[in-house]
Amino acid sequence: MEKIKQLQQDFATFMAETDFNGQPAELYEPISYTILQSGKRLRPMLCLLANEMFGGNTEEALWPALALETFHNFTLIHDDIMDQASLRRGKPTVYQKWNPNIAILSGDAMLAMAFQFALKAKNGTQVAQLLGKVAREVCEGQQLDLNYETQKTVGIDDYLEMIRLKTAVLLATALQMGATVAGANDIDIQHLYDFGIAMGMSFQLQDDILDLYSDVEVFGKRHGGDIADNKKTYLYLKALELASEKDRKRLEYLFSLRMDHDEEEKIEEVKALYDRLNVKEMVEKVIGEYEQIAIKHLDAINLPKERKIHISTYAELLSGRKK
Amino acid sequence: MEKIKQLQQDFATFMAETDFNGQPAELYEPISYTILQSGKRLRPMLCLLANEMFGGNTEEALWPALALETFHNFTLIHDDIMDQASLRRGKPTVYQKWNPNIAILSGDAMLAMAFQFALKAKNGTQVAQLLGKVAREVCEGQQLDLNYETQKTVGIDDYLEMIRLKTAVLLATALQMGATVAGANDIDIQHLYDFGIAMGMSFQLQDDILDLYSDVEVFGKRHGGDIADNKKTYLYLKALELASEKDRKRLEYLFSLRMDHDEEEKIEEVKALYDRLNVKEMVEKVIGEYEQIAIKHLDAINLPKERKIHISTYAELLSGRKK
Repeated sequence: MEKIKQLQQDFATFMAETDFNGQPAELYEPISYTILQSGKRLRPMLCLLANEMFGGNTEEALWPALALETFHNFTLIHDDIMDQASLRRGKPTVYQKWNPNIAILSGDAMLAMAFQFALKAKNGTQVAQLLGKVAREVCEGQQLDLNYETQKTVGIDDYLEMIRLKTAVLLATALQMGATVAGANDIDIQHLYDFGIAMGMSFQLQDDILDLYSDVEVFGKRHGGDIADNKKTYLYLKALELASEKDRKRLEYLFSLRMDHDEEEKIEEVKALYDRLNVKEMVEKVIGEYEQIAIKHLDAINLPKERKIHISTYAELLSGRKK
Repeated sequence: MEKIKQLQQDFATFMAETDFNGQPAELYEPISYTILQSGKRLRPMLCLLANEMFGGNTEEALWPALALETFHNFTLIHDDIMDQASLRRGKPTVYQKWNPNIAILSGDAMLAMAFQFALKAKNGTQVAQLLGKVAREVCEGQQLDLNYETQKTVGIDDYLEMIRLKTAVLLATALQMGATVAGANDIDIQHLYDFGIAMGMSFQLQDDILDLYSDVEVFGKRHGGDIADNKKTYLYLKALELASEKDRKRLEYLFSLRMDHDEEEKIEEVKALYDRLNVKEMVEKVIGEYEQIAIKHLDAINLPKERKIHISTYAELLSGRKK
């Protein structure tokens, strides 16, 4: 835990020393507004922990960590335009606070900045190549997400591929960057990457559950937001698969309703249906399977067990199993 | 001329061999739709000509050239959203043909691709660093352009700084990349860069004139489009500066009118005012000054005169002085 806190501190210090300002102010203010909001710094932490695991020098992993955080925040700014989201982490989105054009443009500048930061790393070319690859994948995932909004039938495999691209690959790449900077070998890096994918999948599925079943106070979002927004999550898709003809029709009908409908009532009805079909337990089973895959890949990395403690502790912290 | 045609052919072949496709199709179709439309390939040509001038190997400059063209096309896709432009090169814009979200996202993927292409160059890190720098500058220029739309007073210097960032730096960087890949020294590269800036400024000012004074058939755009769109070009700003109190008020009034006004009448009235104030001649004088600066920097490059022939021929072709 000490090590985790220390790396969090190292990154916070590095961020505080970074100058995100520039001219014209209209372009740069939204950038510092977004990136300087407190967040978990999940991707930088995975990068620093992976680097630490392979005995790397933390200082050399700070640029890639910053590139990852900058890239992630760019995706938030552009996603919020596409989703017409008005709030993010409890504050107005850039799109809302300024306007869509400024959100497009400051996001673009931020994506360019992410590459500039990546290129400052010791293995700059490699780190920037990894960023280029993952940037393409995240765009592909977001496009699939947009497609699924209007697409009538979405398979569970389609959904898993979407969350792999939209969420898991960036976590896996964060680990990969850290290990690359530390000079790890290709086989170990591949295991770490696969660990990251499996961990990312389990986190996202956990998020789908928490959206509906968590304590609102703890999770900090409105309850059942995914249902209100007609999001085709794993829970929904599994329920569709298992439901009787009558329930399926009802569920599809409920997920065709727009905001103006009574939200609370809709969420309660869908939740009751999910509960009747036991879909929560089924998603938890799938999460358990991804966790097993993650553990298998972490075990396969050719390092003494004690070197892997911080990463597995951090993953447990994030999954909520460890407080 | 033979050399110019040959490099154009080399780049066309390279583009034809590049695969711009991918999945999901919704993300990649707008990319190939945009980049495979015929264009002047101005930025790639400047890169290849600069590389050729310093005795570089054309093959090694093809990746930077492609990175530049990809980057330029990304800016077109995003600019068209911001300007709500429905046509580009006579065809529907991505924003219009698909939708704004797809235009945002395929533009993002294209920006990432541009970095991927830059990183494939021999001096990949350096080329990608130059791309990162110029990407930031182009965003800054576009932000200034957006600011000026609503800003009441815009100085002529502000306008020049905007077109420097929005247009000239990318042309200068194209030359710089080509020279860098060819291994030119820093002093020569700086002169070439400054040549590119001056050339870019003169091109943009020439464009401002052509928008109003060219033969429509040749220029291929509607006449006086800048006036119809209330664009604060050099012509307008210079006219404001020189106009009597009464003319200035009238000009400001005309530039506050929206589309629904009689366009033709407005353009004619503004043009008559410009003519009365001789602003066209004044812009031409400034263009001449930039051309002199460009020639001075090209002359200062430490190479025999015959090596500079292709670049100066190409610049003359573009400026319309040579057919």
